[in-house]
Amino acid sequence: MTIDLQEEPLCASVEARKAEVLIEALPWISRFYGKTVVVKYGGSAMEDPALRASVIEDLTLMAYLGIRLVVVHGGGKAISALMERLRLPVSFRDGLRVTDDAAMEAVSMALVGQVNQGLVGAMNAFGQVAVGVTGSDGCTLKGEPVSAELGRVGTVTSVNTHLISCLMDEGYVPVVAGVAMGADGQLNVNADLVASEVAGALEADKLVFMTDVDGIYLDYPACERLVSCLTTDEAARLAASGELTGGMLPKVEAATRAIEAGVGRVHVLNGTFPHALLLEVFTDRGVGTMFLPAGEGSQRDGASAPPEP
Amino acid sequence: MTIDLQEEPLCASVEARKAEVLIEALPWISRFYGKTVVVKYGGSAMEDPALRASVIEDLTLMAYLGIRLVVVHGGGKAISALMERLRLPVSFRDGLRVTDDAAMEAVSMALVGQVNQGLVGAMNAFGQVAVGVTGSDGCTLKGEPVSAELGRVGTVTSVNTHLISCLMDEGYVPVVAGVAMGADGQLNVNADLVASEVAGALEADKLVFMTDVDGIYLDYPACERLVSCLTTDEAARLAASGELTGGMLPKVEAATRAIEAGVGRVHVLNGTFPHALLLEVFTDRGVGTMFLPAGEGSQRDGASAPPEP
Amino acid sequence: MTIDLQEEPLCASVEARKAEVLIEALPWISRFYGKTVVVKYGGSAMEDPALRASVIEDLTLMAYLGIRLVVVHGGGKAISALMERLRLPVSFRDGLRVTDDAAMEAVSMALVGQVNQGLVGAMNAFGQVAVGVTGSDGCTLKGEPVSAELGRVGTVTSVNTHLISCLMDEGYVPVVAGVAMGADGQLNVNADLVASEVAGALEADKLVFMTDVDGIYLDYPACERLVSCLTTDEAARLAASGELTGGMLPKVEAATRAIEAGVGRVHVLNGTFPHALLLEVFTDRGVGTMFLPAGEGSQRDGASAPPEP
Amino acid sequence: MTIDLQEEPLCASVEARKAEVLIEALPWISRFYGKTVVVKYGGSAMEDPALRASVIEDLTLMAYLGIRLVVVHGGGKAISALMERLRLPVSFRDGLRVTDDAAMEAVSMALVGQVNQGLVGAMNAFGQVAVGVTGSDGCTLKGEPVSAELGRVGTVTSVNTHLISCLMDEGYVPVVAGVAMGADGQLNVNADLVASEVAGALEADKLVFMTDVDGIYLDYPACERLVSCLTTDEAARLAASGELTGGMLPKVEAATRAIEAGVGRVHVLNGTFPHALLLEVFTDRGVGTMFLPAGEGSQRDGASAPPEP
Amino acid sequence: MTIDLQEEPLCASVEARKAEVLIEALPWISRFYGKTVVVKYGGSAMEDPALRASVIEDLTLMAYLGIRLVVVHGGGKAISALMERLRLPVSFRDGLRVTDDAAMEAVSMALVGQVNQGLVGAMNAFGQVAVGVTGSDGCTLKGEPVSAELGRVGTVTSVNTHLISCLMDEGYVPVVAGVAMGADGQLNVNADLVASEVAGALEADKLVFMTDVDGIYLDYPACERLVSCLTTDEAARLAASGELTGGMLPKVEAATRAIEAGVGRVHVLNGTFPHALLLEVFTDRGVGTMFLPAGEGSQRDGASAPPEP
Amino acid sequence: MTIDLQEEPLCASVEARKAEVLIEALPWISRFYGKTVVVKYGGSAMEDPALRASVIEDLTLMAYLGIRLVVVHGGGKAISALMERLRLPVSFRDGLRVTDDAAMEAVSMALVGQVNQGLVGAMNAFGQVAVGVTGSDGCTLKGEPVSAELGRVGTVTSVNTHLISCLMDEGYVPVVAGVAMGADGQLNVNADLVASEVAGALEADKLVFMTDVDGIYLDYPACERLVSCLTTDEAARLAASGELTGGMLPKVEAATRAIEAGVGRVHVLNGTFPHALLLEVFTDRGVGTMFLPAGEGSQRDGASAPPEP
Repeated sequence: MTIDLQEEPLCASVEARKAEVLIEALPWISRFYGKTVVVKYGGSAMEDPALRASVIEDLTLMAYLGIRLVVVHGGGKAISALMERLRLPVSFRDGLRVTDDAAMEAVSMALVGQVNQGLVGAMNAFGQVAVGVTGSDGCTLKGEPVSAELGRVGTVTSVNTHLISCLMDEGYVPVVAGVAMGADGQLNVNADLVASEVAGALEADKLVFMTDVDGIYLDYPACERLVSCLTTDEAARLAASGELTGGMLPKVEAATRAIEAGVGRVHVLNGTFPHALLLEVFTDRGVGTMFLPAGEGSQRDGASAPPEP
Repeated sequence: MTIDLQEEPLCASVEARKAEVLIEALPWISRFYGKTVVVKYGGSAMEDPALRASVIEDLTLMAYLGIRLVVVHGGGKAISALMERLRLPVSFRDGLRVTDDAAMEAVSMALVGQVNQGLVGAMNAFGQVAVGVTGSDGCTLKGEPVSAELGRVGTVTSVNTHLISCLMDEGYVPVVAGVAMGADGQLNVNADLVASEVAGALEADKLVFMTDVDGIYLDYPACERLVSCLTTDEAARLAASGELTGGMLPKVEAATRAIEAGVGRVHVLNGTFPHALLLEVFTDRGVGTMFLPAGEGSQRDGASAPPEP
Repeated sequence: MTIDLQEEPLCASVEARKAEVLIEALPWISRFYGKTVVVKYGGSAMEDPALRASVIEDLTLMAYLGIRLVVVHGGGKAISALMERLRLPVSFRDGLRVTDDAAMEAVSMALVGQVNQGLVGAMNAFGQVAVGVTGSDGCTLKGEPVSAELGRVGTVTSVNTHLISCLMDEGYVPVVAGVAMGADGQLNVNADLVASEVAGALEADKLVFMTDVDGIYLDYPACERLVSCLTTDEAARLAASGELTGGMLPKVEAATRAIEAGVGRVHVLNGTFPHALLLEVFTDRGVGTMFLPAGEGSQRDGASAPPEP
Repeated sequence: MTIDLQEEPLCASVEARKAEVLIEALPWISRFYGKTVVVKYGGSAMEDPALRASVIEDLTLMAYLGIRLVVVHGGGKAISALMERLRLPVSFRDGLRVTDDAAMEAVSMALVGQVNQGLVGAMNAFGQVAVGVTGSDGCTLKGEPVSAELGRVGTVTSVNTHLISCLMDEGYVPVVAGVAMGADGQLNVNADLVASEVAGALEADKLVFMTDVDGIYLDYPACERLVSCLTTDEAARLAASGELTGGMLPKVEAATRAIEAGVGRVHVLNGTFPHALLLEVFTDRGVGTMFLPAGEGSQRDGASAPPEP
Repeated sequence: MTIDLQEEPLCASVEARKAEVLIEALPWISRFYGKTVVVKYGGSAMEDPALRASVIEDLTLMAYLGIRLVVVHGGGKAISALMERLRLPVSFRDGLRVTDDAAMEAVSMALVGQVNQGLVGAMNAFGQVAVGVTGSDGCTLKGEPVSAELGRVGTVTSVNTHLISCLMDEGYVPVVAGVAMGADGQLNVNADLVASEVAGALEADKLVFMTDVDGIYLDYPACERLVSCLTTDEAARLAASGELTGGMLPKVEAATRAIEAGVGRVHVLNGTFPHALLLEVFTDRGVGTMFLPAGEGSQRDGASAPPEP
Repeated sequence: MTIDLQEEPLCASVEARKAEVLIEALPWISRFYGKTVVVKYGGSAMEDPALRASVIEDLTLMAYLGIRLVVVHGGGKAISALMERLRLPVSFRDGLRVTDDAAMEAVSMALVGQVNQGLVGAMNAFGQVAVGVTGSDGCTLKGEPVSAELGRVGTVTSVNTHLISCLMDEGYVPVVAGVAMGADGQLNVNADLVASEVAGALEADKLVFMTDVDGIYLDYPACERLVSCLTTDEAARLAASGELTGGMLPKVEAATRAIEAGVGRVHVLNGTFPHALLLEVFTDRGVGTMFLPAGEGSQRDGASAPPEP
């Protein structure tokens, strides 16, 4: 009989340091336990394999830490890549992909069959938390075409939260692809819009847009004045004064719309920074720009601090 | 003020005939209320648009009639079509598609992004009942490769029924694509096998294989002796005696396996007959071949009759 | 070993026609799934055995199709018949049965012990859906006497929906007899009134009065102008103008009261037309007269059409 | 402003005595809280108004004290009285009422429409606890005829406890009339049999038969040796030895059958003693005869004592 | 074989009298079934062993009779006794115990470790109903210090009812000690205040203060005019007129605050009268003083009578 | 208007390192999610303030990470300290405290009123997770005296898990003091025994004993051969061979008993190592000695490794 003996002693300093990091997160874990968070996942953080792996870890960990989490993802590069392999013409108008019936078929194949399933599979390597959901599943998203020229590009006319709420009640994370049900088939809906609409319908506590920039800059494209915290009325005044310009406006408008639909906080952060999501949620180091409802005061510290004991 | 008056009288005979048909179904409706039925949907009934529409109506109606329904679908033609458009080589060995990584990507895009979403969308045109599910969603199906030559062709090593049971409890119909989670990515699993495994894991009351033949024939390929009803021990004896041959054996084996896993009845029927599914379930006209557990008697009438008052 | 073979081929046209009828009903089934419907069952449709059988089939089918159904029934003929056998004097004042203590005993015996149990038993021949309920059961209906002369004829002073809601939650159909609890024993309450009060208390989606006429006629007793659809304010104007007269007024008032108590739609239809109930609910052929809340527009088609896909 | 002042002082001795009685019951209340008790109510205690009032109080109190209570009642006198008023022949064979179709109609009217509703109404004068249930309601009792000569006299072939369990879960007391569903209409079932079958199907903790005698006597009709406590094997030996005779045997057999079906204790007590039921359940004064399973020891004290602190 | 025979006959008069007392309570039992009652237990009734036993019986019985019961207790004598044994200085300011850190430790040991556990253990001698709860458990009570001089004497800043509601849903009686969570440790909170705050947060139907006087007297300390019933506006007028004085005012203010927080009735009664609690709740003999909301009328009879049948 | 701008850039390496540590824990978090773990907390880790703080953090974090956690604590030093302040004699026999009535009072005051409340308050500084529970609460632990000489030292005769299971279902952590209900008052029960009994009754996945030694040593008191992993049959053989001796035997016996009662794994670890609990559960560095059921193999790696993807 050979008994299994401990051979090396514990190295107190290294091991304890690990534990300390977990413990430092405790006030934030306590704060977000049971809260609803919608994450729009997109941009470079979807393309780069290492970043992608880090985001998937962050999302999975958030789910295990008791957050009611919904992930909404884009997939523009995968769609364009498939359309090119299928020799379908790729064209955009005002930033929106012209989507005829053949393109819509490619959108669904790439977004649902490839990107969504890839995310779900990667998250479920750590457990059994993720479930892919499209707008058609349980009639979650209904929409209508934006315009005749854009074909099957759609807006969201209604969100039925029953399916995703049921899934969250059972401990699952719905991973939502931006495809809606139209009157005669699928519609291609911008993922930012889907995230805003879903977060609003759920009256989420937090909506996070993962982007390729560090947040909202004043006087963009100069990248010198990164806004840490902003109320919706401040945002309106800055837009009126011309300090918020160009590329910044769509994100500001999406954030404002979500806040007005009842979302507690909206964040715009840089998804290319490793574990940006986790750092934002579970440490005292705010990342990117946070939007608050008008009148809640614009001091980041007060809003983001962990609860006092 | 214009009051809306009734203009044409009721035509008693026509209207009443409609009502009679609904009423005739009552004993069967009562019988299957709350029962679990798994339907493997495939073959020509997926390709022909009119047949497809008729199957979708049948499935949706079954859901509204209180059946706990799971649909498992194939999609071989759509997969081959996409692979050809993508210039990927299409080859089969022993009836199974050789599936390298590139082929697997095409399988997922066609099966999940196209066929599954098409079925879900078509069923939800009548309500909000269908939800697409793959083996990755909630780790529903785990598998492992069959052989090195077949690449990502997989068997099912475990079925986690938690997600599909939750969905049925909430009134949804899970529509399952034959893609399983393997150790390092997706696996392509035969839909008949998925249907058998899911039905067994759920201890379903009924499993229905929709095929392109009328049922199980003795002395096949002669199509003269169509079996109406068969116990698993009779099937074993007929296989041993050589009366069950060739193309019939895989279905017989799948049915036998499902019965042994606890499924109450297994049906093999011809999906190309319009509304075959509905006729099988809700009328006294049995369609195709029904398998029963050994020892339950092979009289179709007794097994399929509605309950006496 | 004798194997059970299929002998006759499917006759496509006949069988398929049956299936088509079921399928035609699908949009209406989807529409009423989970909705609350109260049916007042009375008149000739209770007396004629064939009609009675057809109503019982309709009610049972409605229950299996997912409707939360309450049946309220009368039983005047059965009561009078029993009173005559018991040599009790039968007399009416303003259409209400003079009900002394001996008569009340006969009312309860005939209505609860005979008519109610007969309906429950007939419905349960198809399953186990019906449960008889009186006003005393769970204190469902409390009432007080209308007047000293009428004895134990009562109005409804309160409806306690707890018992019938529990029963519907468990999948049962409460079959309600018009007997209420008074301060010192049972009261005999008109079934139309019970149906209105129960439908109002449940805020039912639909209340259906089965009568012996085709609906509400203008210029009654002329039976030429049958109203298809009517808002409550139109009804008030027609009553004021004298176009609604005599025998029509009680039904109009009952319908108006129910709408005002929160019922979505009230129907007056001819119970002597076979399967009138099923045709009203599950086909596009409206039967009889439908009342809507003031201001909802009086176009039947809009109100009764199945949901667009 | 007139303030309401206390005028008479508390009379300590009288009031405190009342409280003491409530407190004395506490160990028994604790013991039976949440337990399932089936009471067969019948005999003289149904006919005498004062006894009837006392039984109804006992039953209602038991419900409020947290006992899951089912009441099964007879009604032979009411049935015979109605049959005589209707000039129907009243005859018995071996103690069972010969029940042709006309008699069955009278049974249902008297038992369900009169006796059952009377009990339910009287219990609900104290709250909203009682709900009348027949064998037809929710298919609770199915039966088949005993013999051709007895007509619609039935045995119980199955008990479906779903409805009565649901009612008890919601805090109601099912009050069950002895009418079962047969293949072609109602059957008249002996209430003792119904009580045994229901208690067995519920695996009740206690079944109480209220009779007109003090319990089981040895050497009956001599009323000198009243048995306090008896195991089923002792009962079998006493029957074999001839000490249990004649009128005592049916009760002994019913009690034995119930114990064998899983009921914990069966009591035979004298319902003509005021509040016999309450005294049996909530005081240390056992009343009548208690049956126990073979092998549990026949010492009443041990079985009936309240739990030690 | 020795059969256990009944030896002594039932003494009808004695036994029946016991039953009558239980039955007399029935209307009150019915009235309070499912209602929420908070009892502040303190004063001499905690010190005298016989009174203490009687209160514990009353509380346990109330729980078994279906009342959702919360007990809040004091323990001043036990605290002082422990402090003296530990040689800690005991001093009061304005009736509140000066509580430094050492005193707080003694408060917690005596109140939680001794008094609370004693009550819980005594109640559970009759079953398994009681569960001790402090302000720290589940963060039920948060508070802050009253003043620097009083040290750890606290007010209640928030009541989290989640834990006590869960316990009552499961059939338990929370027994609450007056210790709250402060920012840096425990706080000593007056039990009257805790009872008021908890009753208000639960919107209790009834709050009962057990004291050492018979209720609220006018012109106290004269004990001649004991108020039976009082609305909050009457109380305000009596206080303004000087008829309510001195020792009576704190109770009047606590009662008024509770009524204003949504409590239905507040009682002040003499806990030294045996079973005062039971007599108040379950007999027609009101005890002490009852407070009602302004405008509900001050006739005790109307408010305290059992429901009419 | 002053907008809040970000001032310092993220220091990628430091922040990312924190995130990495969280992510490293993911496989273990996934593995223990929803599992039941009982921790016996005692020894030096209760006395040293820094160690105590670290254990409280570990326990709170485990609760937020989805573990169904029960904490059982001792408190010998606090009891002895109070007894000395109260001048009560402190004596032990065979390691058990001689506990007369006065000593039992001190045990309850120190253990329940001081130690338990201190732990609950400290854990709830991070949220609202902890609820103090004693054996009396909900009759959780019943016991009987060990011997006359030891007075109120008790064994556990039954564990009623209803209360602690309810609390865990609601997300709370029961913090259990080792006091049981005896026939005539409280009993002082060894916390190791309580932990074993509770873990066995819950069929916990893991039971952890926090001690002052590194685990189980062979040839103790030599501390050279620390066992890493041991099956219960190996333990029995080592005890028989004399390699397990003296101080080690009680822990080995407690662990063996727990395994035999259905606990999955039992750990003995050194609570004086900071965050030993967290390191054991959430890293790949096993700490101390792990017991497994006989026949499960004694390779630590296999048992403690996270699930493969």
